[in-house]
Amino acid sequence: MTRHKPFADAFGPATQTGWRARWFHIIFGHEDAAGRLFDVLLIIAILGSITVAVFDSVAQAHAQYGKLFYALEWLFTLAFTLEYVMRILVIDRPWRYIRSFFGIVDVLAVLPTWISLVAAGSQYLLVVRALRILRIFRILKLTRYVGEADLLWSTLIRARRKVLVFFSTILTLVLIFGALMYLIEGPEDGFTSIPTSMYWAIVTMTTVGFGDITPKTTLGKMLTSVIILIGYSIIAVPTGIFTAELAAGMRTKRKYRPCPQCGQADHEGDASYCRICGTVLPTDND
Amino acid sequence: MTRHKPFADAFGPATQTGWRARWFHIIFGHEDAAGRLFDVLLIIAILGSITVAVFDSVAQAHAQYGKLFYALEWLFTLAFTLEYVMRILVIDRPWRYIRSFFGIVDVLAVLPTWISLVAAGSQYLLVVRALRILRIFRILKLTRYVGEADLLWSTLIRARRKVLVFFSTILTLVLIFGALMYLIEGPEDGFTSIPTSMYWAIVTMTTVGFGDITPKTTLGKMLTSVIILIGYSIIAVPTGIFTAELAAGMRTKRKYRPCPQCGQADHEGDASYCRICGTVLPTDND
Amino acid sequence: MTRHKPFADAFGPATQTGWRARWFHIIFGHEDAAGRLFDVLLIIAILGSITVAVFDSVAQAHAQYGKLFYALEWLFTLAFTLEYVMRILVIDRPWRYIRSFFGIVDVLAVLPTWISLVAAGSQYLLVVRALRILRIFRILKLTRYVGEADLLWSTLIRARRKVLVFFSTILTLVLIFGALMYLIEGPEDGFTSIPTSMYWAIVTMTTVGFGDITPKTTLGKMLTSVIILIGYSIIAVPTGIFTAELAAGMRTKRKYRPCPQCGQADHEGDASYCRICGTVLPTDND
Amino acid sequence: MTRHKPFADAFGPATQTGWRARWFHIIFGHEDAAGRLFDVLLIIAILGSITVAVFDSVAQAHAQYGKLFYALEWLFTLAFTLEYVMRILVIDRPWRYIRSFFGIVDVLAVLPTWISLVAAGSQYLLVVRALRILRIFRILKLTRYVGEADLLWSTLIRARRKVLVFFSTILTLVLIFGALMYLIEGPEDGFTSIPTSMYWAIVTMTTVGFGDITPKTTLGKMLTSVIILIGYSIIAVPTGIFTAELAAGMRTKRKYRPCPQCGQADHEGDASYCRICGTVLPTDND
Repeated sequence: MTRHKPFADAFGPATQTGWRARWFHIIFGHEDAAGRLFDVLLIIAILGSITVAVFDSVAQAHAQYGKLFYALEWLFTLAFTLEYVMRILVIDRPWRYIRSFFGIVDVLAVLPTWISLVAAGSQYLLVVRALRILRIFRILKLTRYVGEADLLWSTLIRARRKVLVFFSTILTLVLIFGALMYLIEGPEDGFTSIPTSMYWAIVTMTTVGFGDITPKTTLGKMLTSVIILIGYSIIAVPTGIFTAELAAGMRTKRKYRPCPQCGQADHEGDASYCRICGTVLPTDND
Repeated sequence: MTRHKPFADAFGPATQTGWRARWFHIIFGHEDAAGRLFDVLLIIAILGSITVAVFDSVAQAHAQYGKLFYALEWLFTLAFTLEYVMRILVIDRPWRYIRSFFGIVDVLAVLPTWISLVAAGSQYLLVVRALRILRIFRILKLTRYVGEADLLWSTLIRARRKVLVFFSTILTLVLIFGALMYLIEGPEDGFTSIPTSMYWAIVTMTTVGFGDITPKTTLGKMLTSVIILIGYSIIAVPTGIFTAELAAGMRTKRKYRPCPQCGQADHEGDASYCRICGTVLPTDND
Repeated sequence: MTRHKPFADAFGPATQTGWRARWFHIIFGHEDAAGRLFDVLLIIAILGSITVAVFDSVAQAHAQYGKLFYALEWLFTLAFTLEYVMRILVIDRPWRYIRSFFGIVDVLAVLPTWISLVAAGSQYLLVVRALRILRIFRILKLTRYVGEADLLWSTLIRARRKVLVFFSTILTLVLIFGALMYLIEGPEDGFTSIPTSMYWAIVTMTTVGFGDITPKTTLGKMLTSVIILIGYSIIAVPTGIFTAELAAGMRTKRKYRPCPQCGQADHEGDASYCRICGTVLPTDND
Repeated sequence: MTRHKPFADAFGPATQTGWRARWFHIIFGHEDAAGRLFDVLLIIAILGSITVAVFDSVAQAHAQYGKLFYALEWLFTLAFTLEYVMRILVIDRPWRYIRSFFGIVDVLAVLPTWISLVAAGSQYLLVVRALRILRIFRILKLTRYVGEADLLWSTLIRARRKVLVFFSTILTLVLIFGALMYLIEGPEDGFTSIPTSMYWAIVTMTTVGFGDITPKTTLGKMLTSVIILIGYSIIAVPTGIFTAELAAGMRTKRKYRPCPQCGQADHEGDASYCRICGTVLPTDND
């Protein structure tokens, strides 16, 4: 459960002194006033840079405020670059941060704007903006502290094998029904190939139903009805899996507490002894 | 649980006398015959005024019954204004009512028609009618007495943090997928800007699928399939959250109260006797 | 729980003799071989008559087999009329049957074909066929014996107040969002009136999304996104309600067993004593 | 629980010797390194042959790589034919395998390509490819070992009667609403026949909503709103059924086994020691 370990512990065990220790707590810490202010400013900057990228894609807005957007783009890029350099400077194990998920996202968020200086071109700039949007994942970092996110996440993790079985069933059905509809309807009704037919089968089975491709023949409509009813029935399956797992998770409040004797790590929240070998479990201090 | 406190207690502690006390019970009370008759008449009037506004927007109906609708409009406005004045007159703490949610809705429901006398204009009248529709919230006031509404409401309240985490995940996905589809498909296929692309992503991930914008390129169709399957999977999340919370809410009605005779500990909340051996259960003092 | 009472008990307590008693058991009974054969033949006849009506509506089939369909139509009508007369003849309390739901459906299933003899006209014949389709409800009569139908039904009954609260919320939202979209988009984008707008709001909130009417303005698209996300969230509510009720119903296997002392009828399946007054409950013999 | 019995037991009780015994374990076994390698190669071959069939249906890919696809097609067919012959040779009870589900699928996967030698024709070849896609079911065979698939499957089996009751209700509603919409809208609005109308009703009630057929009349839109709201409500039913059954299936892993020391009776199925006081739990003999 590294997810519970605070960043401060993961990246530097408080051996810094002076300005480094101070800025380490501001940038990586979330406890004192300065650390929280930094978090809020960072989120505002991320949301601001995303807003600029989003509105710059609107033709009218680009025509009217294009220059302002360009200036803001560089302002945010400089700020994020400064932030990235600071993170590396104040940390004890910089490589560990650089190779972490957010370390890579952080550098990807500023790199494209810098590259655009050398290899200019409007279409490249667009790619830059799309990559920057990944920075919003940083905000999700904060939800780590919302205990609820943990419950939802661990529910998904526990349900992962059921979900995998479910998805292979879905994809098999999509393949078979896609091929059948391609044979029945044919290219003249929009089912131009099996991949297109499979795209249609996914759109139909999940009840999205764009309507860009629809069956025209009687046999095609009958098979579509069957496909839809199957899709409608199995929509229950992921919901059922998730609900049952979540209900079980809420009921037992299971915890990750490895038994020192036999290693069984999955115990109920009120357990004092390992249910497999009877050893006393270590007290849960968090 | 202020929601359970009757209006009569909240707005006036029965210090009125004579006609005020009498009308206070008719308007704010729901217990005696007169109070219930007033409630029923009020609901009929609200539904009637909404029906008039709704049908007045149909071109043919407006052409044929426009004058009747106008007369009814004013009839309902006068009735609601009289009702509002009465509410203020019979209550002990009128300001508390005026500043309450329903106090504001009540005045907003009549104000626009009166304003239309001074600042006339057909388009303004339309706004008037839309605001009046908010009056239907008054009817919801009655559902407060249906105990079930409380259970549903408290379930939503308890689930609010899980729902917040869920919605930030959805919006992040919408942003990323919207930007990617804008880059892949481009303006010529209807994905004219990132905001439009995000609107499409919401329509698609939630399985609505209008079909006004659809992917044309092969890469776009592949990404759409992925987006749809993700949307289809996470539709399970809010359902799971709500169901698990509701089941937990319904289960708490059961209590752990061991029978002194046979030891059966799992009894319903209102049980006075053990359903297995008939022994008197110990009184529940919590 | 009249639903559990067999038809034989409800309509005639075995006082008939001779051919009436015999045919009573064939027509109303489901126990012996003859009774079961009658049920199967009846279901085949109902499905056959529906199939004829359905395929007669297809233009090509009508042109080719119109006369055969017409002949079969009359064959089924005569058979059902004979069946209806037999039911009245062999029963002890014919009025009770005639006024029951299936009694009314049975007569409605044959009446229109007979009326078409007097008041002919092709459009009237169509109405005849639509009414006949109601006969399929007779088949549902058999599901009464599938105990599962009872569980699903009693779950819906127990959840009815929650569902009512839920539906009034939905309809209020449909009204408000419908009126707002009418004001924002206006008749030129397909939102021709508030009723049409409400139809669109229902289609959108329930994630059906036909795409016959779609928002064109930026503000309209933003409001649509909000409406969709609200609809997507509350789709969880009916599912949650039904699931929680069904899970509770399956867990406790509640039974309708009225207490002879205090009248409390809702007890758990394993209860021997009333949990309210401690009286011994009558043994459950079915 | 024949599903759990390994293939090795079902088709041959280890009476073979020499190369037959060896190849039997490679082809039918999944335990040793050689057996697992064969499984992986087989899955790669199946996925490869499906990929070829899928991409051969794309017009551009067929024009460019048609000959390569044709060669690969025959390569896979020869490999699968060899595999089929080997399976029959090494097994003790070949007829039992030949008549099993996967025996029939295996032969259907190679037969059409061979037949295409005799009765050539491009459209027949397409049918060949579609049938080959059924081979992917072989992959599902592996999910049998994922214990989760068993839980999902047994949940569906236990819920089958509830699902049947649910589907007959759906189909009755589809029939009635389809016929009503046919009468109200008529052929000029796309509701050309009752079967087409029923197709539309299925598309609408399941919230797919293609939008290829939409109501045009006011009465039709009103009825559509009712149909959608009914469909929206009953989408809860299969989800509820599946979730409640799955939760019950997951819960049964817990057992009522009172601890002789502290009395805690609610333990997980695999517990040997009480998690509260560490006492050895009595052995579970049922």
